[in-house]
Parts: sequence; C-alpha cells; structure tokens
Amino acid sequence: MKVNSARFLADLHALRQFGASGVGKGVVRPAFSRADIAAREWLTGRMREAGLKPQLDPVGNLFGLAGGRGVLLGSHSDSQPEGGWLDGALGVIAGLEVARAAREAGGPAVSVISFQDEEGRYGALTGSSVWSGGLLPEVADAMLSADGETFAEARARVAHLAGGRVDPAQFTSFIEMHIEQGPWLQQANDAVGVVTSIVGLRGLDIVFEGQQNHAGTTAMHVRRDAFQGLAAFNARLNDRLPGVATERSVWTIGEVALSPNASSIIPGRVAFHVQWRDAETERLDRMEAIIRSAADDIAALRGLKLTVSARPPLAPVAMDGDLQAVLSDAADAVVPGRWQAMPSGAVHDASNVARLMPVAMVFVPSIGGISHDFAEDTDEADLVAGLEVLAEAVARM
Amino acid sequence: MKVNSARFLADLHALRQFGASGVGKGVVRPAFSRADIAAREWLTGRMREAGLKPQLDPVGNLFGLAGGRGVLLGSHSDSQPEGGWLDGALGVIAGLEVARAAREAGGPAVSVISFQDEEGRYGALTGSSVWSGGLLPEVADAMLSADGETFAEARARVAHLAGGRVDPAQFTSFIEMHIEQGPWLQQANDAVGVVTSIVGLRGLDIVFEGQQNHAGTTAMHVRRDAFQGLAAFNARLNDRLPGVATERSVWTIGEVALSPNASSIIPGRVAFHVQWRDAETERLDRMEAIIRSAADDIAALRGLKLTVSARPPLAPVAMDGDLQAVLSDAADAVVPGRWQAMPSGAVHDASNVARLMPVAMVFVPSIGGISHDFAEDTDEADLVAGLEVLAEAVARM
Repeated sequence: MKVNSARFLADLHALRQFGASGVGKGVVRPAFSRADIAAREWLTGRMREAGLKPQLDPVGNLFGLAGGRGVLLGSHSDSQPEGGWLDGALGVIAGLEVARAAREAGGPAVSVISFQDEEGRYGALTGSSVWSGGLLPEVADAMLSADGETFAEARARVAHLAGGRVDPAQFTSFIEMHIEQGPWLQQANDAVGVVTSIVGLRGLDIVFEGQQNHAGTTAMHVRRDAFQGLAAFNARLNDRLPGVATERSVWTIGEVALSPNASSIIPGRVAFHVQWRDAETERLDRMEAIIRSAADDIAALRGLKLTVSARPPLAPVAMDGDLQAVLSDAADAVVPGRWQAMPSGAVHDASNVARLMPVAMVFVPSIGGISHDFAEDTDEADLVAGLEVLAEAVARM
Repeated sequence: MKVNSARFLADLHALRQFGASGVGKGVVRPAFSRADIAAREWLTGRMREAGLKPQLDPVGNLFGLAGGRGVLLGSHSDSQPEGGWLDGALGVIAGLEVARAAREAGGPAVSVISFQDEEGRYGALTGSSVWSGGLLPEVADAMLSADGETFAEARARVAHLAGGRVDPAQFTSFIEMHIEQGPWLQQANDAVGVVTSIVGLRGLDIVFEGQQNHAGTTAMHVRRDAFQGLAAFNARLNDRLPGVATERSVWTIGEVALSPNASSIIPGRVAFHVQWRDAETERLDRMEAIIRSAADDIAALRGLKLTVSARPPLAPVAMDGDLQAVLSDAADAVVPGRWQAMPSGAVHDASNVARLMPVAMVFVPSIGGISHDFAEDTDEADLVAGLEVLAEAVARM
C-alpha cells in the first residue's frame, strides 16, 4: 500500500475551502452550518471516488464504508466557531487517503468516518456519543446551540440525505489521527506521538461565602473577603499539587464570579470552578484529595462558608495495547528516533468509540501548541509523516 | 442648653417608620422614593415646630434655618436600597434636637440639614456635591438611577415644594454626626469618635492579557494564565502593602472579570479593580507605587500584557483643627476616657461641605461594624452619648 502525499495535502486544502475564514488557514465550519453540510457533500463525493460507500447516519456522522470487515479511520470535520484547518479535518482526510491507497493496493478493507458536532455546537462529541451508545438520541435532540437551535432541528436539515445507523460490528478497531494541540512534540522535535491514553477530567464547582462589607470602613483584620479566600485556595493548589502531579498533569481555574462585584464592596461571595486532568485514575484521586482539603482548610482558616459540588467526571481512556504496539512499530519504521508515546490532554471521539471496539490515536505536532484558533498549523513534513505512520500501521495490522 | 434624649430617640424612631423594611430596624428609603419624600415632609414639620425655617433647595436638600449666622448640623435622610436606620438619619435627628435645645435655651443659632442622594441612587453624595459647587447641576440632572430615571426627573417631582439655593455664608461651620460603620469604637469599648480626617480613595482598573488556550493540552509550564497573574498580583499586595500601611489602611479587589470565563479554557484576559484608602496623601502615594510596581513586575515575570488606568481619586479631607479641639473637649466632659480620635474610612457629605466652610464629624459605634444592612444598629446609650457630645461642643463654640 502506497499513500499519495500530494493527493492527501490537496484534499486537506480542498476541505479547508469550506468555511475558510480568510484569516491565515483558519476555518469557520461549526456542525450543521452551510459550510459543514457542503463539506460533507464534498467528502461524500471523494469517498465514492475512492471506492467507498458513503453513508450519513441519523445524527450526521458521515461514514465511507469499505464493504468488508476491517479498521475504521477518521475524526471529525466540523470546527470550532473560530477554528483551525487541521483539528479533526486531518484525521478524516488521512483516513480517506489510507482507505484509497488500500483500495488501490487491493486491500485491506479500510473504512472512514467524519463524526458530527465533536466541537460541541450543540452538545460535545455529540455524533460519536450517540453512535457509541453513550448518549440517547432523544437527549441529544433536545440540546441547544448558543443561537437557540435544537440538535433535532439541525439534523432535520439533512434528513433527506441520511440513512440508518451504521453497524459497528463491521469494524475491527478505530484509529484517530489528530493534531496534538499541545507543546510536547514540537518541544522534543518529534514528528509523531503514539497516544497511550486520553486523560480523565474532573471538576468541582466551589462557593466561598464570607461577609459582604464596606471597603472603606472595614479593617483588613476583621474582613471575611471571599475573593481573598479564592486567592488563598489557588495559592495552596499551586503549592501542593506539584507534589503529586507529573509534568503532564494540569489544573485550571477558568470560571470565576464575585458577588456583588463592585469596587467599593468587599466580596461576600465567590463561585468558581476548578478543573484537573490526568491520565491515571489514582493520580486524579490524589489531586482531588488535595483540592478538597485545600477548600476545607481555607474555609476554616478564614471563616468562610464552603459549598462544593462535582461535575460529571470523565474517566481516563486507555488506548488498546496491541494497536499502540503496531503504531509504535510503524513509527520506528517511518520516523525512527523522532516519535514518543504520550497521553492526550484533550478528549476526542476515540474516547467514545472505545465503548465499541479497540481504539488508538496518533498525533502530529502543533506549531506553538496553538489550537482552537485561526493560527493553528503543522509543518507539511509532519503531516505527511503522520499519514505514513498511519498507513504503515494499517498495513501491518 | 439641655438636649432631651427621649425626644431625640422618639424622633429617630419616627423617622425610621418612613420606609421601614419590617426586617429588624432596617429601612428602604432611597433618594426621592415615596418614603424619602414623605420623610422630608415630616422633617419639614418637625423643623417648623422647632422654630426653624424649612427650605428645600432645588436638588432636594432640606435645610432648617435658624435665621441667624451660626453652625450647621446634619447629614442625610435617604438610605441604601437595603439600609440601616441610623446611616445619615442619626446626624439629621441629632442636629434637629440640638437646634431645638439651642432654640429653647435662647441661643446659639443652630441650623439643620438633610442632604439628598448621599447613598447614590443617582450619583453619589449628589445633594452636597451640587450645593458645595463640586458638581454642576446640569451634570447631576443627567445622572441615571438603576431603574432608568434621571436625577432631573426625580427632583421635578418635588419642584413645587422647592425654593432657591441656600446661601452658605450664613453658616460658620458644619458638624456631621454619623455612625462609624466600622469596628474600631466597639473594639475599644469607646462611646464616641472624634474624626481627624476623611480618608482619601484611589482606584486602578487593571487588565492582564495572557494567552487563551486549551485547559487540557496546554502544559502548566507554558501557560500564560491571566487569572494566575491576578492571583500573583494579589499575593504581592498582601506581602508588600503591610510594610507601608497603618492598621487603618485598606485595599480591596472587589471587581473581577475573566475572559472567556469557561471551565475548560485557560483565561486569556482578566480585568479587575484595586481600590485603596488612607488618611494621608503621602501614604496613598506609597501604596500606589507598590501597587503599580506589583502590576509591572507580575506582567513582566509572566509574559502578560498590562493595561492600567486610574479612576478619579478622592483626596483625604482633614477635619478643622479648632472644631476637632472643641469636640475633643466636649468628649472629655461627657464620656471621659471613652472616646478616641480616628479617621473616617467612608466618604461623607462633610467631604463636600469642606469646600464651603470648616467641617468636623463625630462618630458613635456600629454594633459588629455592620452598616448598609438591615442589621445596622448602635446601643441607645451610645446614641445619647454622641448627641450630648455634639450639644456640648455647640455650646462651647
């Protein structure tokens, strides 16, 4: 099997024209937008030309079926509201090229998928969630976009093109190629990452309540300032979490609301969210213990009332060991000494597909670690290296 | 001159009935509300009964004029949206009682004032700002309440009751009695405070801009997290400001806005306000130098873009030395060993009146330091002690 890198890059740039932002290589192609539907129509044609049987499923996932039982390759072709040209698109077009090359070589059977609404215009990873049975279709249908459209209304617009659910039994495994969206590969000057697991994610909504008071008359030593509670909590996390974290562990306070949020009033209340991610369940547990005890301690030390509630967690998803081994061998053959095994810090469609079959992922570097931004990009040589590793792995399976 | 404490307390409770919240002794009597207008009508009657000539000025300040040249006593009778019964009201009724007692004693000439919109339903200290020439009437007229009414519309509702501007030349000085709204008097078990100055206030609007990024894929060591910039800035203030502060100096971060304020996104931007107050201009300067250099340092250390803009500052207002001396002598006579000289952490109408004549203030304790709250209160014995100090000072002037 011989992939054609020029044809692969040409298709990647052709897909980029659907929703091209006009800013760098950026794209604006949210799920079920005109640009997204046009891109799926174009992809349908490319699949047919490659000898695959296109099938749009009821929730907008577009499959290109090889006919025989075999591997499924792909990702998603919808984008963020201000997205990069590779996030999702790369995995779909790489899958298409490998399927085409396999067809030309007389085998093996390689099918392709572009999942729908991975970027969460309505839900989050909606297409792969429904297909894998992780989300009931009627629950997905009720989800709303920011502009007030339900997922049901959106998918009704392409209902005339849609067939039934695609039977997953025809696929032996799923490999998703994707950009890293982080700094590690570029930092190590590696061309390829073989993903070991997709990190788990947990989050706590925390409220500290102190005493709202006059910012002029209330002496520093009698204040129970909720914002100062948050600052002390944050300092404690930065002090203690590194003791259990690896260099890949992350934690983030990204959402904060002070009350009453006025310049002359000591904040009586702060509601905020702390999120953390790690590849190991045990480390997620240890981080959680530190975070919860930090909140308890700060509340007690500062006379603050504490409320803590957890958001639904995502468990880490281990990549299949056999598939990792095949991808590692392929990487050794194609980019010897220039690849690494690594976790994925972001959640992907592969997390859902793991409910149905063995899954694996292969990463290529993101320049500057930038993603979800028009500036997102990857060196052409790395795009091709990733494609060749994927093809080599499929050939060896 | 002999004040009548029973009559004083009865009037104070009578005023409380206008806008009584039904929660503790709380009141809801914002400027130009029905309750506020009714309270001013009642006050007009009480002034007339006391032998004073009532005059509502064009912006709603209600004077009770003694006729001869002499001291002006008072404060404001409008309240916060959820206010206490004493904030402002105390100074007005204490002034009324002293004026009445002085009248009964055959002198001296004591006039009374209830300023309008001290609590800032439209502006802030609007009535005393206009009367003292610190705010142009046409600028005040354009100010809007939260429910969208202009100050011009509000004052038009009582225009039929209003006379012309009251000539300040008839007043030799102004003394404002007020609750402390802070913890110091109660903490020291003092009954009275003689105010030395009203603190100055400065504020900076600060923006840190870092790099918005994916909270899963972006390693801790490459982040430029704007919220972490704010937290580090706050820690530096808490570390360095105590080196120049007195125990009365205060600083507050009460207003914070993160962008994009989402749980899975590293904050790319934080806009916040830091306010500080002190009685001394030189100390305000030293605090400002620390705050500005902390912002510079944190921005440089963390690779954040920094924007700083100052809000209009308020300079400290010194109380008149002679009036302070008279009040101190009076306090020595009435509550020997149970009073202290102290700054005012809050801004008051006296800050404005200082443009026109010598001013002074006398404080009584706030239970628990609580104000701007239905729970605001002061022991009756302290209310009476404050009244007696005020009357004694007027008698000695």
